[in-house]
Amino acid sequence: MKILIINGPNLNLLGIREKSIYGDQSFDDYFKALQEAYPEIELQYFQSNHEGALIDEIHDKGFTVDGIVLNAGAYTHTSIALGDAIRAVKSPVIEVHISNVHTREEYRHHSMISAACRGVIAGFGMDSYRLAIEALINKK
Amino acid sequence: MKILIINGPNLNLLGIREKSIYGDQSFDDYFKALQEAYPEIELQYFQSNHEGALIDEIHDKGFTVDGIVLNAGAYTHTSIALGDAIRAVKSPVIEVHISNVHTREEYRHHSMISAACRGVIAGFGMDSYRLAIEALINKK
Amino acid sequence: MKILIINGPNLNLLGIREKSIYGDQSFDDYFKALQEAYPEIELQYFQSNHEGALIDEIHDKGFTVDGIVLNAGAYTHTSIALGDAIRAVKSPVIEVHISNVHTREEYRHHSMISAACRGVIAGFGMDSYRLAIEALINKK
Amino acid sequence: MKILIINGPNLNLLGIREKSIYGDQSFDDYFKALQEAYPEIELQYFQSNHEGALIDEIHDKGFTVDGIVLNAGAYTHTSIALGDAIRAVKSPVIEVHISNVHTREEYRHHSMISAACRGVIAGFGMDSYRLAIEALINKK
Amino acid sequence: MKILIINGPNLNLLGIREKSIYGDQSFDDYFKALQEAYPEIELQYFQSNHEGALIDEIHDKGFTVDGIVLNAGAYTHTSIALGDAIRAVKSPVIEVHISNVHTREEYRHHSMISAACRGVIAGFGMDSYRLAIEALINKK
Amino acid sequence: MKILIINGPNLNLLGIREKSIYGDQSFDDYFKALQEAYPEIELQYFQSNHEGALIDEIHDKGFTVDGIVLNAGAYTHTSIALGDAIRAVKSPVIEVHISNVHTREEYRHHSMISAACRGVIAGFGMDSYRLAIEALINKK
Amino acid sequence: MKILIINGPNLNLLGIREKSIYGDQSFDDYFKALQEAYPEIELQYFQSNHEGALIDEIHDKGFTVDGIVLNAGAYTHTSIALGDAIRAVKSPVIEVHISNVHTREEYRHHSMISAACRGVIAGFGMDSYRLAIEALINKK
Amino acid sequence: MKILIINGPNLNLLGIREKSIYGDQSFDDYFKALQEAYPEIELQYFQSNHEGALIDEIHDKGFTVDGIVLNAGAYTHTSIALGDAIRAVKSPVIEVHISNVHTREEYRHHSMISAACRGVIAGFGMDSYRLAIEALINKK
Amino acid sequence: MKILIINGPNLNLLGIREKSIYGDQSFDDYFKALQEAYPEIELQYFQSNHEGALIDEIHDKGFTVDGIVLNAGAYTHTSIALGDAIRAVKSPVIEVHISNVHTREEYRHHSMISAACRGVIAGFGMDSYRLAIEALINKK
Amino acid sequence: MKILIINGPNLNLLGIREKSIYGDQSFDDYFKALQEAYPEIELQYFQSNHEGALIDEIHDKGFTVDGIVLNAGAYTHTSIALGDAIRAVKSPVIEVHISNVHTREEYRHHSMISAACRGVIAGFGMDSYRLAIEALINKK
Amino acid sequence: MKILIINGPNLNLLGIREKSIYGDQSFDDYFKALQEAYPEIELQYFQSNHEGALIDEIHDKGFTVDGIVLNAGAYTHTSIALGDAIRAVKSPVIEVHISNVHTREEYRHHSMISAACRGVIAGFGMDSYRLAIEALINKK
Amino acid sequence: MKILIINGPNLNLLGIREKSIYGDQSFDDYFKALQEAYPEIELQYFQSNHEGALIDEIHDKGFTVDGIVLNAGAYTHTSIALGDAIRAVKSPVIEVHISNVHTREEYRHHSMISAACRGVIAGFGMDSYRLAIEALINKK
Repeated sequence: MKILIINGPNLNLLGIREKSIYGDQSFDDYFKALQEAYPEIELQYFQSNHEGALIDEIHDKGFTVDGIVLNAGAYTHTSIALGDAIRAVKSPVIEVHISNVHTREEYRHHSMISAACRGVIAGFGMDSYRLAIEALINKK
Repeated sequence: MKILIINGPNLNLLGIREKSIYGDQSFDDYFKALQEAYPEIELQYFQSNHEGALIDEIHDKGFTVDGIVLNAGAYTHTSIALGDAIRAVKSPVIEVHISNVHTREEYRHHSMISAACRGVIAGFGMDSYRLAIEALINKK
Repeated sequence: MKILIINGPNLNLLGIREKSIYGDQSFDDYFKALQEAYPEIELQYFQSNHEGALIDEIHDKGFTVDGIVLNAGAYTHTSIALGDAIRAVKSPVIEVHISNVHTREEYRHHSMISAACRGVIAGFGMDSYRLAIEALINKK
Repeated sequence: MKILIINGPNLNLLGIREKSIYGDQSFDDYFKALQEAYPEIELQYFQSNHEGALIDEIHDKGFTVDGIVLNAGAYTHTSIALGDAIRAVKSPVIEVHISNVHTREEYRHHSMISAACRGVIAGFGMDSYRLAIEALINKK
Repeated sequence: MKILIINGPNLNLLGIREKSIYGDQSFDDYFKALQEAYPEIELQYFQSNHEGALIDEIHDKGFTVDGIVLNAGAYTHTSIALGDAIRAVKSPVIEVHISNVHTREEYRHHSMISAACRGVIAGFGMDSYRLAIEALINKK
Repeated sequence: MKILIINGPNLNLLGIREKSIYGDQSFDDYFKALQEAYPEIELQYFQSNHEGALIDEIHDKGFTVDGIVLNAGAYTHTSIALGDAIRAVKSPVIEVHISNVHTREEYRHHSMISAACRGVIAGFGMDSYRLAIEALINKK
Repeated sequence: MKILIINGPNLNLLGIREKSIYGDQSFDDYFKALQEAYPEIELQYFQSNHEGALIDEIHDKGFTVDGIVLNAGAYTHTSIALGDAIRAVKSPVIEVHISNVHTREEYRHHSMISAACRGVIAGFGMDSYRLAIEALINKK
Repeated sequence: MKILIINGPNLNLLGIREKSIYGDQSFDDYFKALQEAYPEIELQYFQSNHEGALIDEIHDKGFTVDGIVLNAGAYTHTSIALGDAIRAVKSPVIEVHISNVHTREEYRHHSMISAACRGVIAGFGMDSYRLAIEALINKK
Repeated sequence: MKILIINGPNLNLLGIREKSIYGDQSFDDYFKALQEAYPEIELQYFQSNHEGALIDEIHDKGFTVDGIVLNAGAYTHTSIALGDAIRAVKSPVIEVHISNVHTREEYRHHSMISAACRGVIAGFGMDSYRLAIEALINKK
Repeated sequence: MKILIINGPNLNLLGIREKSIYGDQSFDDYFKALQEAYPEIELQYFQSNHEGALIDEIHDKGFTVDGIVLNAGAYTHTSIALGDAIRAVKSPVIEVHISNVHTREEYRHHSMISAACRGVIAGFGMDSYRLAIEALINKK
Repeated sequence: MKILIINGPNLNLLGIREKSIYGDQSFDDYFKALQEAYPEIELQYFQSNHEGALIDEIHDKGFTVDGIVLNAGAYTHTSIALGDAIRAVKSPVIEVHISNVHTREEYRHHSMISAACRGVIAGFGMDSYRLAIEALINKK
Repeated sequence: MKILIINGPNLNLLGIREKSIYGDQSFDDYFKALQEAYPEIELQYFQSNHEGALIDEIHDKGFTVDGIVLNAGAYTHTSIALGDAIRAVKSPVIEVHISNVHTREEYRHHSMISAACRGVIAGFGMDSYRLAIEALINKK
């Protein structure tokens, strides 16, 4: 089973940026732990601050992987194009968020991609990614 | 570890009502399977169509259980009082939805309780409940 | 033929409350007259000020009666849960109002349940109930 | 007793147009059936696609007939002038709709004429007209 | 002179819940102090988390007591039905709030019941109840 | 000097309709009085309930008369087409209203034609027409 | 007959400020011409840039003059207090504007005082004041 | 092949009205040029300022012509009835505009008929009509 | 103990203006009665129709009096500057209204100063001022 | 004559993605057919999922080609920057859409680039591109 | 070179009021430092809590000084009249704010005067005034 | 001291594009002048039309430079991701605009990044950049 994790803008700074919201663990460390926890799954990782690069990656992998775990960061709230990319591919996509976006600014309460995704998981810190993997495994 | 699952209005009809949206499994069957899957957890279940009864239950159990998995059904979108009840208790509460509410009517896109909950899980069918339990176990 | 009439919040005070809007006839008197006018129909009546009790009743009878005539009172404008209950059962439901809600406050102009009902009848005083029964008889 | 039925724009195509919404009966056939069902009532019929012609007709007949049954079609949602015409005459006017407008596009959910009418009947197919006549007979 | 104090949802947790907003005094203690301060008044108390139960109580007592002091909690902002219940009875009703709702979330700034009440008192902690009693005494 | 007075929908019923708002003088009587008061002006009059007929008339006369006094009635608030007709012709057009529209329903507070007119005069009863004529004389 | 003309903020700069909108005549010159044109009327004039001073003046004269012609300038669009002052006095008040406010910025399209005034005259340049005087004479 | 061109309100003044927006060519001249350019097509033309007349024409021809090119002018933005007429007939309808409506007033940015049409062509001056004919030919 | 009562615009006309809303007692008479009722408190009074003068007074006294009772009249709904003045001083400020503003125009339902005040008392006629004094005494 | 066709995000998947909306022809095949149909025109093609790359391309070619045919995909509805890029160059730009965006989600009904373009063509499938080329040829 | 600094409501309390937002320096001290830093400029200072007084001052000096640095405080967000005053004079006006208004309440995010000013400088504490002077010197 | 100037989309065309708004100086020329004026500061410059590239640059330099002067162009109004990038780094960021955005289209009046920046400077042409440097020097 192949699962691709995609992180959007500013998530390369996890562990550095706004620790009170996102915690102080870097995503690389977390990703290694995930790989160890799910040795039977081929986990891939992609991060970009470019909306277009995220779309390119979804196109590229979205017909072959068994699932995509997508934290689109701020593009969640503004990108119709990402939603279209998700609709265009075959792999199921799960929207995840580290923080509970509903406790933050008003403009983070609405998602332009939820309706295109299989489901949404938000607010569990890094554990949101693991739960999404669990969901994909179960759906298989 | 004690976890309480609460289902709100119309969810007593799961397996009977609008099967194209909610599937055809009754919640009782699903709950038994959950209990078997997590024998180490004391799982409790409560369902009511009464907003007040849901609040009463949260008050009642919300200082002693280790977590509440709440599918507030339609009250998700209208009940400020439920949000206040969640804020008033000590147990962490996780908001779950069976369907992906973002693909349905506009008035189901906003939640009055998300900001009071630990996190949100939506769109994975019955599996949303299991993922919430996973999240609570991990947080412990 | 079985028809259930359900009255929502504050409608127990009909004939007592705000007579300039609702008239001075009690619903009990009117209901007896209806029964006499339609001896061939088994007319049932339920009233509650509790949103949850209205939902329970719809679940209870909504798979066996031939029609439900529902005056949801103020819950008409706020209850998504009632709309869901109507969608969940098999009996056709007709929304009725005694007064012409469109001549009253702005917040009474929108109904959360109309889209789930077979049709809407509003503004004919007590006669709105009889017209709903006529509609159900004709549809049969 | 004299009752005037007025049909607004596009309702001349009943039985031809969008049959999944409006059914396949022409209004002429239905009108004949109505006349036979209510021989004691002098039923009149007027149809126009012209907002001004509908207003003219309401002015013309609205001081002498015992009631007007008005299906204003799409003008229901846009015409303040029709509402003014209804307010200007003496005969009671009942707003009817064949389909349940609340299950259709958002812009069909609001009526500019309801507040000027005696009452509203919507969603019963052709039977909406008969129910309006029943309401007028009872009010007499 | 008879005065009924009604507390709505979550106010049973006063002294336990969110102390930074509501203080740490339980309502029972406060109520006893009130009774001692106003020995000449027959003070009654009712609390429920059920919207319907609040309406039932208003119907029940609202024709005989000399005044109702109502803290409707979160139902203040959502319940048209409570407003209708207040309009339906004869006893004057005063809306009170412990906290200054205007310093809290946007959705707590609007009240669905103010227009039906005699007046509004908000922001004085528990003292809001006493001020309402003072207002009722003076109006008598 | 030639001035054309145009009255829109329902204004043919002046003196008959809603007298508490519009007074009980018919426009014909008022028009005769106006002609006597301004013998040096060639006053013309046109009334229609048809939006299209009002546009036709503006096209017809709007290149030759010295001014148009337009009471567009309810079309004031809905007709972009009338505004376009006014912009398309050469004669200055003055918008008049008998009642003070700002004391009436919200939907009468906005005009779709004001921005296309020379000026607006509202609230002076029939005298609004005379004041518009005065304005046209002075501008000449 | 006594008539008071009140000019609000920035109108002291008439003839100096934004001539393309307001023209190049000073109000003093215009006022003298008005006095000569209406020798039988005692015309008074007051200007202030202070909202409070305008209210004071309306209170002061609003029980004795036969009419007030008020160009409230920018306060037209923001001052509820001015509207209250107009409602509080006995003299009829007419709202005037030199320019056609509907051709200008969106925030100049709404008036907070129109509903409190007898009528509105806008868009005729300085002549708006004369037309208001004409209206007051005729009403007398 | 038969194609009907329909022009709505004020478009009879093309070449006369607001030349900076619509150009100075009359539609009659343009129509003759079109006929010459497409001799194999039977081109028909209809213009009216009456919303009802436009609807009548669409009903009349909309079951027999191979396509309708509709410039509904200002009715584009306000007429639900026109949209219903288009939906009711069989011939494909193409919405055209001479000017780029998106560079004009806000209220011209929304169309009530686009969703009922095959497609939209706007901003190419008179050439918009020819492009619509091209589109119809190609679809055939 | 020193308490300052401040009345805003148009409240100098109490007892004269709109008696059906504000009653027929002048504030001077009421103020004398208050002074007699609370001889131990040094009561001061200030009224102005000038927003700036109200701010000046709050600055002047707001560091030395034990409380301010503020009826800001119409400035309640429009003045951010008054709210800032209240935030800038040390004395607690209580917002009062004579009428129940929620039963009046929509634009009187929102207050720009509530969030800056200690609490709000509205709808008790002149007694609102006394209740505010009671609240200040109790808080001391 | 040189014309550049630019396709925005997800349009590289034409023929693969959501065929019920976009058809099953790949753009490459269509482009070849276009080149054959217009041998006298130098047709260029550019596609990117990157908003910035689209802007770069418009800057690069927008001073030398005779026209740009732009299908900005989802960026149509969100990108002010694309609109600015179009305004910044000299070549006329035509906005095209394959589907009739007005029959799709609400958020696809508004375009941020229309006002910067020469014109708009939408709803004709692939033929929208050809019509745009026709429009550019004619304008030349 | 003459530059006038104008401070609006509550800014007389700088150094006293809400120090966490505005700092603890009084404006008088800062002004002296400014005068020393720019000895070649004739710096003037005016402060008032009265909207009208601010307008009067702008009228008074706005035709002779070389620039006005205006911190309109809360009137920034509500005063159309101040915007008009700025438009009416010849001296360029620069809008300044001490705090970054965009990090504060929603109602401080919109300015009614920005569009009338030369430019805006916000968020640099007292240094905002100096930067405005720099801007004026450079423009000279 | 190191300061980075970042220009967003379309600003590479400064001096070429829309000269009436942005002037005719190229940014390169202006940058050289700046370097000469501030020889003690190490000034760096970056421009991109790619939202992602702007974010990358802010991440790259935002932990080492002493300040960033950011003209985000059109992304100012749409990019939540840019705001997040600014919040994520340590260097203070100042938002600048060449033109006074408040005199332009409505959609340019709101900034998604202001709340994340130290301050805002807008409307001073190229001089806005210099003022931002002045502000950074002074803060140091």
